[in-house]
Amino acid sequence: MIIGKVVGSAVATLKHEQLKTTKLLLVQRADATGVVADETPFVAVDLVGAGEGELVVVSQGSSARVATGESSSPADAAIVGILDSLRFEGAIAWRKE
Amino acid sequence: MIIGKVVGSAVATLKHEQLKTTKLLLVQRADATGVVADETPFVAVDLVGAGEGELVVVSQGSSARVATGESSSPADAAIVGILDSLRFEGAIAWRKE
Amino acid sequence: MIIGKVVGSAVATLKHEQLKTTKLLLVQRADATGVVADETPFVAVDLVGAGEGELVVVSQGSSARVATGESSSPADAAIVGILDSLRFEGAIAWRKE
Amino acid sequence: MIIGKVVGSAVATLKHEQLKTTKLLLVQRADATGVVADETPFVAVDLVGAGEGELVVVSQGSSARVATGESSSPADAAIVGILDSLRFEGAIAWRKE
Amino acid sequence: MIIGKVVGSAVATLKHEQLKTTKLLLVQRADATGVVADETPFVAVDLVGAGEGELVVVSQGSSARVATGESSSPADAAIVGILDSLRFEGAIAWRKE
Repeated sequence: MIIGKVVGSAVATLKHEQLKTTKLLLVQRADATGVVADETPFVAVDLVGAGEGELVVVSQGSSARVATGESSSPADAAIVGILDSLRFEGAIAWRKE
Repeated sequence: MIIGKVVGSAVATLKHEQLKTTKLLLVQRADATGVVADETPFVAVDLVGAGEGELVVVSQGSSARVATGESSSPADAAIVGILDSLRFEGAIAWRKE
Repeated sequence: MIIGKVVGSAVATLKHEQLKTTKLLLVQRADATGVVADETPFVAVDLVGAGEGELVVVSQGSSARVATGESSSPADAAIVGILDSLRFEGAIAWRKE
Repeated sequence: MIIGKVVGSAVATLKHEQLKTTKLLLVQRADATGVVADETPFVAVDLVGAGEGELVVVSQGSSARVATGESSSPADAAIVGILDSLRFEGAIAWRKE
Repeated sequence: MIIGKVVGSAVATLKHEQLKTTKLLLVQRADATGVVADETPFVAVDLVGAGEGELVVVSQGSSARVATGESSSPADAAIVGILDSLRFEGAIAWRKE
């Protein structure tokens, strides 16, 4: 899994049957201090009620797919946790405000 | 999943049984403003009727495979949504014309 | 899936049971004009009778595995189509000679 | 699998049902001498009781998922071994102190 | 699959149940001439009796997992062939001594 930050959302009225009731969030990878990498955001489904700006745990691949509870879901990325704090090399590196 | 732009198509008369009725589209990854990255395009199957030039949501890996409805499909990338708009850091970053 | 070019082959007399009757081809990724990237070639099984020098469609991961028809195949890359032409941004970018 | 070093941990009170009893560790990839790469750490579940600072073997993707014993686990990275030593090009390159 | 060279081994007395009887080898990716890339080695299980210094075929992801014969194996990389020769662009590029 990776640390991610919810940076936006995507709207698609025409989409795969199994994504119809799902909110699509834009996520960027972040480091242990909560700083996002300068990378193209990707699209994840949200399984825990994450909001924009929150730091989250993102599962990828088949693990994201089965985590949705629908084994035939097209989801290949899913938000599976909302982070409270990150500890890195013996110290708190980030804490939710 | 990733944001992609349909930039072309591939014709292969000789192909795997399970791809015979499928259109193969060329896709390039795009960012939250709809701008494509300068990367080699990849090949995706289309599950939602996407057209050239459209911004789409692309599923990858086993999630793309099962999304086709054929668990033994060779597809490892599938277009699963057609984007209407993208919201990034609190503002609309891209909207379908 | 990706566009690939068959650039060689690999011989391994000692190999996994499920690869014993399979030809192993060396493939390099190619762009929409058929030009190969300067990347280390990878090894793919051939499901469509591809020959050296041909431009092909390559499936990866579990999709390649199930495409072989053997769900316990060690194959993680499989040639699933032989390309006739590629269309990129409204024009034919490559055509088989 | 990859060689990894446990460099921290993540706390998420709100998380996917199947992660509720699982400790989430931060891991960085390491080379054969035990030196970590300057890369963003990722999040792994711990299946062997690894502690911070230890060099471990990390499984990724569906292999990490099934290794948890829960085929519907959202885990896509799992610590599956604690390293004692690494041998590289004929010599011991790293040994646990 | 990729071409790899066995460059070492890893010892882990404490490891996942399904890895207990398995030797863990360190592998680096190699090109068609057998030269290894300057990349961090990864850890693979050996299914064909490969020795240090040998050039091998490595399967990755779920294909490596099922190739072990244990569908719940944590293995995400497996040596599935020992190479005798590699042919690249019409000529023998590497041959086992």
